[in-house]
Amino acid sequence: MDIAALRSANPDHWNKATAIRALTLDAVAAANSGHSGMPMGMADVATVLFEKHLKFDAANPDWPDRDRFILSAGHGSMLLYSLLHLTGYQDMTLEQIRNFRQWGAITAGHPEYGHAKGIETTTGPLGQGISNSVGFAMAEEMLRARFGRKLVDHYTYVIAGDGCLMEGVSQEAIGLAGRHSLGKLIVFWDNNNITIDGKVDLADRTDQVKRFRASGWQVLEIDGHDPAAIDEAITAAKKSRKPTMIACATHIALGHAAQDTSKGHGALTDAGQLAAAKEAYGWPYGPFEVPAEVKSAWEAIGSRGAEDRKAWETRLSEASERRQKDFARIFARDVPKNLSARIKALKKQIAEEQPKVATRKSSEMVLEVVNPIMPETVGGSADLSGSNNTQTGDMTVFDVDNRKGRYVHWGIREHGMAAAMNGMALHGGIRPYGGTFMCFTDYARPSMRLAALMRIPTVFVMTHDSIGLGEDGPTHQPVEHLAISRATPNTCVFRPCDTVETAEAWEIALRSTETPSVLSLTRQGVATLRTEHRNKNLTEQGAYVLADAEGKRQAILMATGSEVEIAMKARDLLQAEGIGTRVVSMPCMELFADQDEAYRKRILPAGPVRVAVEAAVRQGWDRWLCGERGREAKAGFVGMDSFGASAPAGTLYEKFGITAEAVADKVKSLL
Amino acid sequence: MDIAALRSANPDHWNKATAIRALTLDAVAAANSGHSGMPMGMADVATVLFEKHLKFDAANPDWPDRDRFILSAGHGSMLLYSLLHLTGYQDMTLEQIRNFRQWGAITAGHPEYGHAKGIETTTGPLGQGISNSVGFAMAEEMLRARFGRKLVDHYTYVIAGDGCLMEGVSQEAIGLAGRHSLGKLIVFWDNNNITIDGKVDLADRTDQVKRFRASGWQVLEIDGHDPAAIDEAITAAKKSRKPTMIACATHIALGHAAQDTSKGHGALTDAGQLAAAKEAYGWPYGPFEVPAEVKSAWEAIGSRGAEDRKAWETRLSEASERRQKDFARIFARDVPKNLSARIKALKKQIAEEQPKVATRKSSEMVLEVVNPIMPETVGGSADLSGSNNTQTGDMTVFDVDNRKGRYVHWGIREHGMAAAMNGMALHGGIRPYGGTFMCFTDYARPSMRLAALMRIPTVFVMTHDSIGLGEDGPTHQPVEHLAISRATPNTCVFRPCDTVETAEAWEIALRSTETPSVLSLTRQGVATLRTEHRNKNLTEQGAYVLADAEGKRQAILMATGSEVEIAMKARDLLQAEGIGTRVVSMPCMELFADQDEAYRKRILPAGPVRVAVEAAVRQGWDRWLCGERGREAKAGFVGMDSFGASAPAGTLYEKFGITAEAVADKVKSLL
Repeated sequence: MDIAALRSANPDHWNKATAIRALTLDAVAAANSGHSGMPMGMADVATVLFEKHLKFDAANPDWPDRDRFILSAGHGSMLLYSLLHLTGYQDMTLEQIRNFRQWGAITAGHPEYGHAKGIETTTGPLGQGISNSVGFAMAEEMLRARFGRKLVDHYTYVIAGDGCLMEGVSQEAIGLAGRHSLGKLIVFWDNNNITIDGKVDLADRTDQVKRFRASGWQVLEIDGHDPAAIDEAITAAKKSRKPTMIACATHIALGHAAQDTSKGHGALTDAGQLAAAKEAYGWPYGPFEVPAEVKSAWEAIGSRGAEDRKAWETRLSEASERRQKDFARIFARDVPKNLSARIKALKKQIAEEQPKVATRKSSEMVLEVVNPIMPETVGGSADLSGSNNTQTGDMTVFDVDNRKGRYVHWGIREHGMAAAMNGMALHGGIRPYGGTFMCFTDYARPSMRLAALMRIPTVFVMTHDSIGLGEDGPTHQPVEHLAISRATPNTCVFRPCDTVETAEAWEIALRSTETPSVLSLTRQGVATLRTEHRNKNLTEQGAYVLADAEGKRQAILMATGSEVEIAMKARDLLQAEGIGTRVVSMPCMELFADQDEAYRKRILPAGPVRVAVEAAVRQGWDRWLCGERGREAKAGFVGMDSFGASAPAGTLYEKFGITAEAVADKVKSLL
Repeated sequence: MDIAALRSANPDHWNKATAIRALTLDAVAAANSGHSGMPMGMADVATVLFEKHLKFDAANPDWPDRDRFILSAGHGSMLLYSLLHLTGYQDMTLEQIRNFRQWGAITAGHPEYGHAKGIETTTGPLGQGISNSVGFAMAEEMLRARFGRKLVDHYTYVIAGDGCLMEGVSQEAIGLAGRHSLGKLIVFWDNNNITIDGKVDLADRTDQVKRFRASGWQVLEIDGHDPAAIDEAITAAKKSRKPTMIACATHIALGHAAQDTSKGHGALTDAGQLAAAKEAYGWPYGPFEVPAEVKSAWEAIGSRGAEDRKAWETRLSEASERRQKDFARIFARDVPKNLSARIKALKKQIAEEQPKVATRKSSEMVLEVVNPIMPETVGGSADLSGSNNTQTGDMTVFDVDNRKGRYVHWGIREHGMAAAMNGMALHGGIRPYGGTFMCFTDYARPSMRLAALMRIPTVFVMTHDSIGLGEDGPTHQPVEHLAISRATPNTCVFRPCDTVETAEAWEIALRSTETPSVLSLTRQGVATLRTEHRNKNLTEQGAYVLADAEGKRQAILMATGSEVEIAMKARDLLQAEGIGTRVVSMPCMELFADQDEAYRKRILPAGPVRVAVEAAVRQGWDRWLCGERGREAKAGFVGMDSFGASAPAGTLYEKFGITAEAVADKVKSLL
């Protein structure tokens, strides 16, 4: 690469882009870890994007109608941090850049959502950003349809690397974006032909241009170091009705001795080589030094959008008061005032009618109450709409000619669905929920973890939550998936026992602003157990006494979901033998763990034998069986210790010994 | 669709194919659940494949050089069961077909590997079979290169549906197969344009033909109900150096009232409609009845390969005795006789030299000993070769012009890697292991679960196994992933504390014939703690006393991996204060759980305070902290209860309070 030619062709551009390269080199060298090469290779694309196209106002980074910029290749975090610092985002100080990858700094190894303004999503696990972006772009379409282009009209820009495109989830994202003609989604592919192990060719020879076109994208191919070509391509992309992929031929670690090699992917820290690269750049400045004229040119870019932002604010202020309130409410993730009353009314009705239905059906009953009063909900399913019960009567299907549709047919793409739902939640103004079978938590895992890490309230509707799904057999029967979600920090796992608890769980999930929820729901019908109406949301405390012991309390049964009914029947058997038995319903372990010790002890007093019942593995239960510091009770578990099998649900419960009789026997063996 | 025309065009073919359709309709109706439509749509393709091309011998289904047939669209299990029954696989009796989806039957809802011969892999979770098939085809290439085409020369055939192709993992598989020119891999795409929610177009408009071509596949397009076209396409596919995708235009639920609708995807049970379909088929037989001439035609197909098989056996018997033994050993999953001695020698050397290395490096040291004596091992990494330490000096890279290469650059495809490794293990003759970061267990999960369910010994080398990976931050730091793998039935999770335990863990993983292993390995250096050589493999018992208490035993510390060193230092602190402290190293909880109660009690006697130390979430530890039936000890845990952070590893251990001092303090607070 002829660096001198690049420098002289457009010195203004060169200096701006090189400020990114130099900051990157300095920060990675100071941290002695990180990824230098990607920011060095993509600095030109990013500079043109920010300078000429990206609609943003560094002084007001939360402006809802800003364009979104997503660094899917998250290891190149210094590209983003440099841009935020240079354009004048207040919290991205030079001190933060100096502390790249250090404890307490907002400049983490990979961009962490919530650490700094301008980080639109957490990236690093490859393929996630590009898949989030589909949700961002869908959210924009939906909100534009609802509020009009005066209030919502922005682009979603993504930088993706070879790693992002090799991860399977990217295919799910590409297919969705193509299917839905998400024309305001623009992806830059950092086509540098290098991965950690070597040339891309070591592992892949896919023609990415043809691949994207096969899914209905516009593809443009450019030299990623040519500012005019970059500008032209973005201009063309913005006009397209199709999503656009701009294949940017770039040189990783441009101008460094490691240019175009896999060494250039990682941390370039050799002082002599750094000096040589800066020499080639014509950058005679000290570490972390950006000359004033370059910094002020960047700051001008950072404030370029201020006028647009003010004009937008004026337009918002001209909207009806109701519209303004609506807009503010949904972006604040507030629920409507009448939600609580509606949920209570449903609970009361259920307590009276006492239907015997599957909790997936209960969930639909709740959504039929919720969706009409929360136009920000967007439902969907990974091709199991009829099984997940996620579409309500008022929801039409999102499509190219129905952008107001609030129901998404995600296709057989659990992972892409979860990632796109995260994108919707991050965009703001949308409360996404989506369904699949509980067992396919496995496919969606990488994005479910990121929802928890990012502290966003995505709702995962996971039906067919045990061997109770029956004949489909062990590939479709979750046994470890409750434990998996419960092991994940900042995740609420709800396994309601009936329609009342399902309504309570939904209310909590919708009120949540920072925690994703997993709703674990049955395929099979269960009795209504909460037959006495209480206004109070008992699920909020995670566990509560559903039926107390008569006579001396000798045993406590704990259960969730479909097994609460079994625990109640076991209680009948035990009480008939004079064994006083309490049943604790525990729809959410995490919320129970959050209660104060006094409450936890009141629900689970020391002394009585404890038996937990759940058609899943034991892991996660010992905490409640044994007491948090040990030594509280004799304890037992009735559940699964293997994979399931293919047979009718009733047979499976019998054969795997998850029955009221087995529970009663377990109690008696411990007494 | 003109059924009459199909019938009259080729009555022999029609009757054979219709036997599949009729058995499917009857079995699904009897079970009142299942998927009728796919077998009805793909019966013609399957009939031609089995009749004219598939190399198999129903009487000797384990013949190693048979062609492999993989039903990636596993919900269409009755297609496979019908074929196995009709061609005369001994265990697939009519009784089994009648008991479709019932307890104890080998005819589970989805094909379960191990239930019956001829089921080459467990499918149902979509995208898995097609991704396994890449491993099957690679294994065939590798073994053909090693043993010659006289002993190894077969095809891998796959039936995949729209669901398989929408799952992202299929893109990873397609990319790999194209990159490696796996010409003996032939995929039939059941192009019926229907998914559960409706037409495919609801969720996807990808041009699959172009998509496959973009990744280097040959694509043929045919009418999937035209036997001549099917035959021609397979013949052409077999000659290709590229993998071939045959796009088969089919009608789901052919000839039934639900044909070409999403209703046709599921269980067709209406008696009148069944009768009408059979009427249209010209199939005047009772339920489960196959006329003798049709059955015998199918049985002739089933024995068509007997001659080939015998010829192959002759060729094998003509090979050198050593070659025959080798071949038998690797297909029996036996380790070589000298493995144990080599491992012992390494352990002895390590106990003397006491290196301070990361356990990922320890793993490489073990593999340098193992790989030269086990030519059946195949290593690889998802683009982290230098970090996972999975390539040894004797391993060259598998490539189109080096089929003897035993190292695979899987690319940034953790899921595809795991699925393909499963395929290799299922094919036989290969012991696959592959690496990524522990955190990306998330991406590989669906296939890791299937390895456990199928009882195959795939080895997952998961490095950078805690906050100890440092600056990359929380997206790359596993905290819940040990719990996730431990929650999964039939999975051994090893977290060795030093090189000696790493060698022991590898020995167990390699000796395993039915259980996958997860090796959880550090990025950071750890001291050698097993400084006294023991021939015995102590890891085999899951947990053992690494250092016993001096004086009265007041505390037991349990730890794994990098935290054993911390526990040992805490023991020093406590002993210095006169508190007798035992340290239990617990490299594998599952193996410890398998020991008899006497051993478990000897290691963890009731009485002393117990504290566990692991830089991960607590879930999974309570069982050992509290005793399996409760009431054994006061207990505490030192580990993580949140996601990690970006900073140097040492800082993170300090800040998250995982230190010897914290452990000692925890013990004292409990005493």
